[in-house]
Amino acid sequence: MKIAVLTSGGDSPAMNAAIRAITRVGINRHCEVFGVYGGFQGILNEQIHELNSRSVSRILHRGGTILTTGRSEEFKTQAGLKKATKILSDRGFDALIAIGGDGTMHGLDELGKYWNGRLIGLPGTIDNDLSGTDYTIGFDTAVNNALEALDKIRDTAEAFSRIFLVEVMGRHAGFIAFHVGVATGASAILMPETTTTIEELAQKVTAAKARAKTSVLVVVAEGDELGNAHVIEKALSEKIGEGCRVSVLGYIQRGGNPTHFDRILATRLGAYAIECLLGGMHGGMVGEVDGNLIMTPFEDTWTIKKPLDQWMLGLLDELSS
Amino acid sequence: MKIAVLTSGGDSPAMNAAIRAITRVGINRHCEVFGVYGGFQGILNEQIHELNSRSVSRILHRGGTILTTGRSEEFKTQAGLKKATKILSDRGFDALIAIGGDGTMHGLDELGKYWNGRLIGLPGTIDNDLSGTDYTIGFDTAVNNALEALDKIRDTAEAFSRIFLVEVMGRHAGFIAFHVGVATGASAILMPETTTTIEELAQKVTAAKARAKTSVLVVVAEGDELGNAHVIEKALSEKIGEGCRVSVLGYIQRGGNPTHFDRILATRLGAYAIECLLGGMHGGMVGEVDGNLIMTPFEDTWTIKKPLDQWMLGLLDELSS
Amino acid sequence: MKIAVLTSGGDSPAMNAAIRAITRVGINRHCEVFGVYGGFQGILNEQIHELNSRSVSRILHRGGTILTTGRSEEFKTQAGLKKATKILSDRGFDALIAIGGDGTMHGLDELGKYWNGRLIGLPGTIDNDLSGTDYTIGFDTAVNNALEALDKIRDTAEAFSRIFLVEVMGRHAGFIAFHVGVATGASAILMPETTTTIEELAQKVTAAKARAKTSVLVVVAEGDELGNAHVIEKALSEKIGEGCRVSVLGYIQRGGNPTHFDRILATRLGAYAIECLLGGMHGGMVGEVDGNLIMTPFEDTWTIKKPLDQWMLGLLDELSS
Amino acid sequence: MKIAVLTSGGDSPAMNAAIRAITRVGINRHCEVFGVYGGFQGILNEQIHELNSRSVSRILHRGGTILTTGRSEEFKTQAGLKKATKILSDRGFDALIAIGGDGTMHGLDELGKYWNGRLIGLPGTIDNDLSGTDYTIGFDTAVNNALEALDKIRDTAEAFSRIFLVEVMGRHAGFIAFHVGVATGASAILMPETTTTIEELAQKVTAAKARAKTSVLVVVAEGDELGNAHVIEKALSEKIGEGCRVSVLGYIQRGGNPTHFDRILATRLGAYAIECLLGGMHGGMVGEVDGNLIMTPFEDTWTIKKPLDQWMLGLLDELSS
Repeated sequence: MKIAVLTSGGDSPAMNAAIRAITRVGINRHCEVFGVYGGFQGILNEQIHELNSRSVSRILHRGGTILTTGRSEEFKTQAGLKKATKILSDRGFDALIAIGGDGTMHGLDELGKYWNGRLIGLPGTIDNDLSGTDYTIGFDTAVNNALEALDKIRDTAEAFSRIFLVEVMGRHAGFIAFHVGVATGASAILMPETTTTIEELAQKVTAAKARAKTSVLVVVAEGDELGNAHVIEKALSEKIGEGCRVSVLGYIQRGGNPTHFDRILATRLGAYAIECLLGGMHGGMVGEVDGNLIMTPFEDTWTIKKPLDQWMLGLLDELSS
Repeated sequence: MKIAVLTSGGDSPAMNAAIRAITRVGINRHCEVFGVYGGFQGILNEQIHELNSRSVSRILHRGGTILTTGRSEEFKTQAGLKKATKILSDRGFDALIAIGGDGTMHGLDELGKYWNGRLIGLPGTIDNDLSGTDYTIGFDTAVNNALEALDKIRDTAEAFSRIFLVEVMGRHAGFIAFHVGVATGASAILMPETTTTIEELAQKVTAAKARAKTSVLVVVAEGDELGNAHVIEKALSEKIGEGCRVSVLGYIQRGGNPTHFDRILATRLGAYAIECLLGGMHGGMVGEVDGNLIMTPFEDTWTIKKPLDQWMLGLLDELSS
Repeated sequence: MKIAVLTSGGDSPAMNAAIRAITRVGINRHCEVFGVYGGFQGILNEQIHELNSRSVSRILHRGGTILTTGRSEEFKTQAGLKKATKILSDRGFDALIAIGGDGTMHGLDELGKYWNGRLIGLPGTIDNDLSGTDYTIGFDTAVNNALEALDKIRDTAEAFSRIFLVEVMGRHAGFIAFHVGVATGASAILMPETTTTIEELAQKVTAAKARAKTSVLVVVAEGDELGNAHVIEKALSEKIGEGCRVSVLGYIQRGGNPTHFDRILATRLGAYAIECLLGGMHGGMVGEVDGNLIMTPFEDTWTIKKPLDQWMLGLLDELSS
Repeated sequence: MKIAVLTSGGDSPAMNAAIRAITRVGINRHCEVFGVYGGFQGILNEQIHELNSRSVSRILHRGGTILTTGRSEEFKTQAGLKKATKILSDRGFDALIAIGGDGTMHGLDELGKYWNGRLIGLPGTIDNDLSGTDYTIGFDTAVNNALEALDKIRDTAEAFSRIFLVEVMGRHAGFIAFHVGVATGASAILMPETTTTIEELAQKVTAAKARAKTSVLVVVAEGDELGNAHVIEKALSEKIGEGCRVSVLGYIQRGGNPTHFDRILATRLGAYAIECLLGGMHGGMVGEVDGNLIMTPFEDTWTIKKPLDQWMLGLLDELSS
């Protein structure tokens, strides 16, 4: 079987581990494995090169993606999809594996309407906002990266008595904010999934300060309905009559060596993708749910909303009291 | 309800997060929470002090345990267990929560034969060798600590062409070795659960060196049947006629700030322990299996053997090829 | 001799190491050492408590400052200075050691006009913008913190082909930006000490991108004459017709465990301050220049401008080519 | 000018930064720069390839050495030196720059007796045991690596009340042990430069334990006259009647991303080496002393003993009291 693999959208830690597993397990099972460089656009540009076992040496512990990534407007058009189909067919590919987020799953779904090759998606995004898997590849590392930054901010915060608003990634989902918030004992966590008014926030922050007589930490998902951390700071400081400090963690969340959790998840899903292809199962995203490897139709991955843990949500006020 | 909490055996990262959750959720649910200092021996020494919400401030991100820990020979005797029973009863305790490994669960089980208070265990050990929970508190951090050390060793390893034997913790279980080995792409992983002869090891290592023309990494669990890393090095170097480098990671695996995974697992299990006590469920260890919080009878936690992932085990040779 | 010690202004890593050395060496030399909490304001509030050898246990490796810090408007007034003088005299203090940046040295200088006790300053600021010492306490840690964040950003940057503007601390001095820029191979470094126009920056960035065909990194000191990173991004993206990514590192630069360099520098300067006091030398800031411990009059520390290394500045274009 | 560059002996962090600076500054000054792979043996094997500006991209932040390293018995013989001389001359080299420790300086010194090309050494060893430079390339990173490991051990140590012996690198010099010991507040530091008997050590450890009622840390240089950490543990535990825990940090000290200090030192020395060559200065090791770049005759680098800081040595007992 001749398989193409690509990474698309924003990169996420341990994408390389997935590429390595796909390549090595693929080759051991007598497939030919080709890397597409630069995401879906790389198909259109025919930046496609064969991978061997050595190509994926020494990448298991590196962040980023050796295949590079990118976003492609052309691929979203009918003409682009037809061109990709022709290229994949002309070059004799039997299957395409793409690693990325919801945009990537969407791209695979669209391509499936034109190309009759086998398609499989791997959930590679730090946001953890795909259904069909408990965790996406890169999420664990991103949360630990954010945590490490926050532990450092805490060190300095304890020397003062201040309110810190820390913005983490998550445009449509609060998973990073939620995990970071719980793991750092934040006084409040602002996420797209929950609604918090400035009044409620002011009350929480004021109570926390009165109680602890020390610094107060608020974690903000970038996609919160109140706005980004700078916008919220303005509203909050007006309400409580005291300036707050803002820190936007940004790109450091994506980088760094992946954790064992992400390396192993990526390795498992990569190996499983090959097993699926060879076993005739395709047309969806592979994922791990409750310890089981499963496949979910592409569309379900972005249409079904993955919920936050309601029990933990209910405990937040008790934990930060 | 009047609750005592202690940490016992070797410390593990995020024990503090569990203590914090037990204390804060307990107090919010109108319990009195007391900390026992120095493990089970702390009961016998009556080193028992009330905890309030402030007692557990600023500990969520710290390794170790604020309650300190220890091993107690006295507690293992009938006299010791009776004395502990008397002290807990005299001081009016309704429940005891102990965080630790298999020795701790054993201790709770024994105490339950004398004391009629409510007993709950939390799995706190880096070894992950307890049934009744997918992961123990501290395991995720320990593996990432080991991984970070190994990534550093890899940096220097690539400058030479050498064989490295790295010993990680795990006297009776290979979970740390297995996760570290998969996550670093080790050429071989030696664990108590599997049997590898020196001949097989020599063959793997020689093949890996021939293939990669660079350094070769072998991960060894301290409890492997072949012996510790120094013993194995001696046998291996004789067999292949080339000295190997040995690194014993040791205590650094226990330390460092806990990961979000461990902080959240510990927080969940701590909160759940309180909910169990108040709901009348006790007499076992709380754990998380496939995303569900459950309780397992103490004895099952150490008598039922938790297996390694057989599917991943089967993939090891393909992945490191 | 009865000595008071305080930390003032922004905190910086390894202030605790200085407090520890002052306390322990002081006590061993038969001084009484008192900690003032909350900076100069702590004198006015009489938040002054005796320190013993145990008070400074387990703080050597912690960021922040156990004495906490703060800024005081009252202390800047004549009334405040007189009040502080009275309090220090009434309580029988012979000397005051203050650890901080230029504002702290200024405060000591002013206090010296009223109080006839012995005054010594220690350079504690991440900005490294004080003359009289090659490095200030905390600078080395801050640069390594920024570097670690940048190494992470690089990981993700290499997956794309983008221009990154990363803003580091340094309102009046470019030392952090300079060291970070050299150590990460930045294509351009924008600092208060040098003048770079948007045209020059656009040219450098465009050339770097053409040459490297990969991501381009620009390090910006927050006090650069062109503005902060967001302002510069706007101007630059208009000029080159391509959006750039901005990351403001912020508070993470202050936190984390101090490096050995800062811990040792702080320890040396703290011990030296005690030796100076006992030897009758005071009225200035202690520092280390070319390996020698020296004392510099307070005023010189902020009026004499410490230069960047001109030879290295001249090499920048060659190094990033 | 045609220049060869190699790395020899054990690798040390930021060797890559030196290679990068030599290559880029060399090329900008119209030299041809060639990398020799595998140390001095690489000359004999003629593993010599031209480097360009791109060859040294993306290596500034990586540990290890892209030129790899090795030890060569052949090069130590007269025949080997003559062969190297012939190869360097035949291929038209004008100069050779070698980065390494005392063995490397020795090798250059020997080669200088045969080859009339220009020779320059760069101090690249984590041990800091070369005269002619305040710090060697890699020392700062190694100490911080050891420190990070020790901070982790401290986390767990505080949960118990134990004596820890931690062995760090340093066969002939105690610089790493000294810096690590001061920076972690060790109760005792055992180094080749100082003499401590088991009786003195037992006394210090016992006093520290009585005083602190917590864990006690002893840092041991691998080359201490009492033996390695395991040997010392045996003697000490017999003397005090209590087992101690031993941790040998080993190879993790060499790895990890280099610190800014090492990257900048390596960059400065690499650029300076080129300037020296072009200016006609050679026949020695470049180094930095009191902020000045200097050159020292090869022989002086290993015959003159670099002393530990006597003043700090004298303060140790006061600091850990």
